[in-house]
Amino acid sequence: MSKNILQETLEKIRPIDPKWLARAQTRLDQLTKPRGSLGRLEELAAWYVAVREELMPTIGKKAVVIFAGDHGVVEEGVSAYPQEVTFQMVANFLNGGAGINVLSRHVGADVQVVDIGVKYDFNAMPGLIIRKVAPGTRNLAREAAMSPEETEAAIACGIELAKENIAAGADVLATGEMGIGNTTPAAALAAAFTRKNAAAVTGRGTGVDDAVYQHKIEVIDRALALHRPDPKDPLGVLAKLGGLEIAGLTGLILGAAAARRPVMIDGFIATAGALVATHLCPAVKDYLKAAHQSAEKGHQIILAIMGLRPLLSLDMRLGEGTGAALGMNLLAAGLKIYREMATFAEAGVSDQD
Amino acid sequence: MSKNILQETLEKIRPIDPKWLARAQTRLDQLTKPRGSLGRLEELAAWYVAVREELMPTIGKKAVVIFAGDHGVVEEGVSAYPQEVTFQMVANFLNGGAGINVLSRHVGADVQVVDIGVKYDFNAMPGLIIRKVAPGTRNLAREAAMSPEETEAAIACGIELAKENIAAGADVLATGEMGIGNTTPAAALAAAFTRKNAAAVTGRGTGVDDAVYQHKIEVIDRALALHRPDPKDPLGVLAKLGGLEIAGLTGLILGAAAARRPVMIDGFIATAGALVATHLCPAVKDYLKAAHQSAEKGHQIILAIMGLRPLLSLDMRLGEGTGAALGMNLLAAGLKIYREMATFAEAGVSDQD
Repeated sequence: MSKNILQETLEKIRPIDPKWLARAQTRLDQLTKPRGSLGRLEELAAWYVAVREELMPTIGKKAVVIFAGDHGVVEEGVSAYPQEVTFQMVANFLNGGAGINVLSRHVGADVQVVDIGVKYDFNAMPGLIIRKVAPGTRNLAREAAMSPEETEAAIACGIELAKENIAAGADVLATGEMGIGNTTPAAALAAAFTRKNAAAVTGRGTGVDDAVYQHKIEVIDRALALHRPDPKDPLGVLAKLGGLEIAGLTGLILGAAAARRPVMIDGFIATAGALVATHLCPAVKDYLKAAHQSAEKGHQIILAIMGLRPLLSLDMRLGEGTGAALGMNLLAAGLKIYREMATFAEAGVSDQD
Repeated sequence: MSKNILQETLEKIRPIDPKWLARAQTRLDQLTKPRGSLGRLEELAAWYVAVREELMPTIGKKAVVIFAGDHGVVEEGVSAYPQEVTFQMVANFLNGGAGINVLSRHVGADVQVVDIGVKYDFNAMPGLIIRKVAPGTRNLAREAAMSPEETEAAIACGIELAKENIAAGADVLATGEMGIGNTTPAAALAAAFTRKNAAAVTGRGTGVDDAVYQHKIEVIDRALALHRPDPKDPLGVLAKLGGLEIAGLTGLILGAAAARRPVMIDGFIATAGALVATHLCPAVKDYLKAAHQSAEKGHQIILAIMGLRPLLSLDMRLGEGTGAALGMNLLAAGLKIYREMATFAEAGVSDQD
């Protein structure tokens, strides 16, 4: 059933049409500025026009969808924070006190919080979307993190959330996540898809010390040796090394691309989810912008593989979707330029000699 | 008279107190995120607290002050646009159709347009502040661009506009400018203060071709040979090589620093104005953030001299204050994080092990 949802979604995704980029650029070049002088704001505007296939599109709602999940691999001691922080932070999101809440308010975006795999039984809480596939993953250093069924269910959950948000008027989606330990599966996925060893793609996450950092690299290398992940089997790689929230993000991205909605990708975890999505369907790349360069070293490597150039470089490494929220605001700025600036003709300004 | 204003202003400027940075960081470190994980947003918040010397400051009005002036050096053929574009763009600013209008609306900033030296007699137009020091500068390749009196009057104009804006509630100022040909004086100032030749600091401005670019470099080198500017005499360097709008920006920056208000610096032209200000009073640096890395090659060089690291790198090269508007929005985001995020204690979230 969920496999059908995935297949249906993949079949709907087609590359964006460069004709729409050219149409948008024609208008951008008539605006009262030297051609190209608003740089990446112009790129964002043209991209949005091409994704939407409308000459004067608007941005209605902006939604940050946060998938929260726990990770069996934390029993290896790879994180600076205890596992309970995942569910504590879910409560913080619901109360509006986390970084992503503040930045979403700043940019006028809605925040959705999805329990896709937290190791905690939440009572119903206002605003919490409970779609728990499993109470956390298994320890990827010892066994597959997820079963094939769990993997597909988590992807299907992401696809459904994309559909629900778009049906409710979201024109731009941003990837959010929370999961103590989740830089470990993200680095494992980055290593698997790039065929690099762990040291090349592993960072310090929320801030582990040297000893824990070395241990984290060893844990990931051990997992790679155990699972021998095959990049040609993206679902298999995701099941062995991934996380429920990462699979949810993969699904969200696929669902958005299928419905021709742009996705602003946050940091390392979200980009790992995007990496899985682009291995399932390369055309997905056309629907993605990388909001920022995270401080995690593997991030740059997997962005480069997907041909994504980060918009911001603000030394951020919080995750949650915080970079993506700021990225959505740049997209909104670019579209506003495109829609609201006067043309040379309208303003009576002389164009270049 | 205006010299007295400058002296009075310089005497009021003192470095920011690192104790306030530390106080701000203490709060930032209690918020529900790994320490330092919001990177430059945290830097901006702590900076604002230290500039304002208040533990819970707010940002009231944000103002972009655009100084418009013309340049005698355009008779050398150094720009891709005709000189009339300066006054045409002033009208575009007043009508709300320029890039800076759109981005200021996006970030909730006011735009002020000041005729400090446009070669055009404006009728009174709603919103236009006419403080014309002279109808453009003289050709810096042949003689001093400004007299000492004009230079001081233009700086005084900037100081007064800082005062007026702050009195009207502006808590953050951003530097804006318009002046066809003004990358030439900016490059000349950059060369003079760094003792480099023109080729090292000169870019293509709004987009000149190879032949004009080479000619622009020759014009600037000729001006440097003629004037032999002495970096120890910043007012003399500014008079010989500068522009009325650049001197206005120098004054605006000094006036803001004297009143303990932060200034978001835009691109190459504004940074040249800041370079003059920091040569008049090194402590001014503490009140400045560089909004973005412009595509102009000299920009990076003079930012490095002042120890300013640009916040954004979006391939923008429009000027007008467009980068600074986006930079003010990042400052607002950082302060919002500082003010609105929950602490670990408030949220009941476990801190790092």
